[in-house]
Amino acid sequence: LEVRVVAQISSQKPSPDPDRGALYGDGFFTTGLIESGLVCHLDKHLERLLNSAQRLEFTKFTVAPIQDKLVELSRTNGQAVFRVTVSRSQYQRGYAIAHEQSTDVVIHLYPWVAPPPKPCEVFFAQTPISLNTKLAGLKHLNRLDNVLAATECQLPDAEAIMCHNDWVFCGSRSNLFMRESNQWLTPALNEAGIAGITRSRLIDSAKRHGIEIRECQISRRQFERAQAAFVTNSLWGMRPISKIENKPLDIAQSCELKALLSFER
Amino acid sequence: LEVRVVAQISSQKPSPDPDRGALYGDGFFTTGLIESGLVCHLDKHLERLLNSAQRLEFTKFTVAPIQDKLVELSRTNGQAVFRVTVSRSQYQRGYAIAHEQSTDVVIHLYPWVAPPPKPCEVFFAQTPISLNTKLAGLKHLNRLDNVLAATECQLPDAEAIMCHNDWVFCGSRSNLFMRESNQWLTPALNEAGIAGITRSRLIDSAKRHGIEIRECQISRRQFERAQAAFVTNSLWGMRPISKIENKPLDIAQSCELKALLSFER
Repeated sequence: LEVRVVAQISSQKPSPDPDRGALYGDGFFTTGLIESGLVCHLDKHLERLLNSAQRLEFTKFTVAPIQDKLVELSRTNGQAVFRVTVSRSQYQRGYAIAHEQSTDVVIHLYPWVAPPPKPCEVFFAQTPISLNTKLAGLKHLNRLDNVLAATECQLPDAEAIMCHNDWVFCGSRSNLFMRESNQWLTPALNEAGIAGITRSRLIDSAKRHGIEIRECQISRRQFERAQAAFVTNSLWGMRPISKIENKPLDIAQSCELKALLSFER
Repeated sequence: LEVRVVAQISSQKPSPDPDRGALYGDGFFTTGLIESGLVCHLDKHLERLLNSAQRLEFTKFTVAPIQDKLVELSRTNGQAVFRVTVSRSQYQRGYAIAHEQSTDVVIHLYPWVAPPPKPCEVFFAQTPISLNTKLAGLKHLNRLDNVLAATECQLPDAEAIMCHNDWVFCGSRSNLFMRESNQWLTPALNEAGIAGITRSRLIDSAKRHGIEIRECQISRRQFERAQAAFVTNSLWGMRPISKIENKPLDIAQSCELKALLSFER
């Protein structure tokens, strides 16, 4: 264990300012794909970043340089997974956001991954999801609940469903959809969870095909009795669920919807 | 806005491994004082770090090197504020904690600050506190709720009280105590909040003086009707509250308790 010391007790202002992403998780991110030399759904990623910046009071933020860099990277890296991380730095110590703030952006590039060929087996995570109406929906950097829930997944094709008390919100790294009384539902995310780009694209695509997907509160018992269910994220696309807590679930209706919408990830 | 790119698509394992403190807030910290060449309450800080490491599944963590470094720093910096930040790094991408993890420790040193001479004026924060039984009590790096609540404090002597629905938990950077029916109470922190070192020292000190401070659920209305109230943290020590939402509050009983316990910060 190496211990690094950063002293700020000299009278000189340190440079650069401390990054509050590492101090408080004060920031946000988005993860997506570069395929065939194009950034998939670039507009949605930029929109998400802009919305996150506004809700988290980032006053020194613009998307143009991020757009430029992603497009540039997509030309030299035909296939890749990218992550854009935006965090706040400031000189002033303590939690409060200073008037004098600056913004750090890091783009990580990772090897491209194929969507998993198998359906997903889900179970209820022991780790609850954090409830906070001011943070709900955002892909912010406070993700310890996802970290602990995802760590509960021992099998490669498993996904942990995150709940708070009796309410179901999402998977540890995915959004959730289920079918009940021949109607597709997805958990409302006013109190917890991340409003995924694939989630909103799927809802829009279904709407264009005349299928309404209703956002509402969903209880554990409701979810356990689903006629069909699937999870979504940028890397998996739309992925049917074949088991809920060891109870087999028919994937046919999820596959039919996927085919009807020709929903690529 | 400068955009930094970190590419990990070469076949070589990058070095060092990505720090998940900056990616997910995957870590924890403690903040304290160095005074007269001594680390105040060093044992409590080390105990907190060890407990946080266990609860957050840090498998490669020991306190000895941190203790050594803090003691060394206290000899060369007679008066300072310190922050020890512990975060996890690993090669494997995604939320799940890998078996192969390592631990990063950074100690920040800041100029020493005198405790504020004035009592505190408190108001209810608009930002709710995040609820999560698995994370409650820990001083982990997921602090966006504190960031937004502390930013609501416009006046230098103000503190924002953090609630969830009708329940009161703490200040944005402090723990909270109140008096009702001649009994001292403090919010239970099973669902949210940070179990502060000063909070637990104060509870222990009161106990030694035959005064029980009861941990329990406290509602907003209960708090608004307090006979007396104060906040605590490592930098402020015990700080009386003189106003709750513009309603004056007598600080006499808080000052009496402080004197009785001779409670230094």
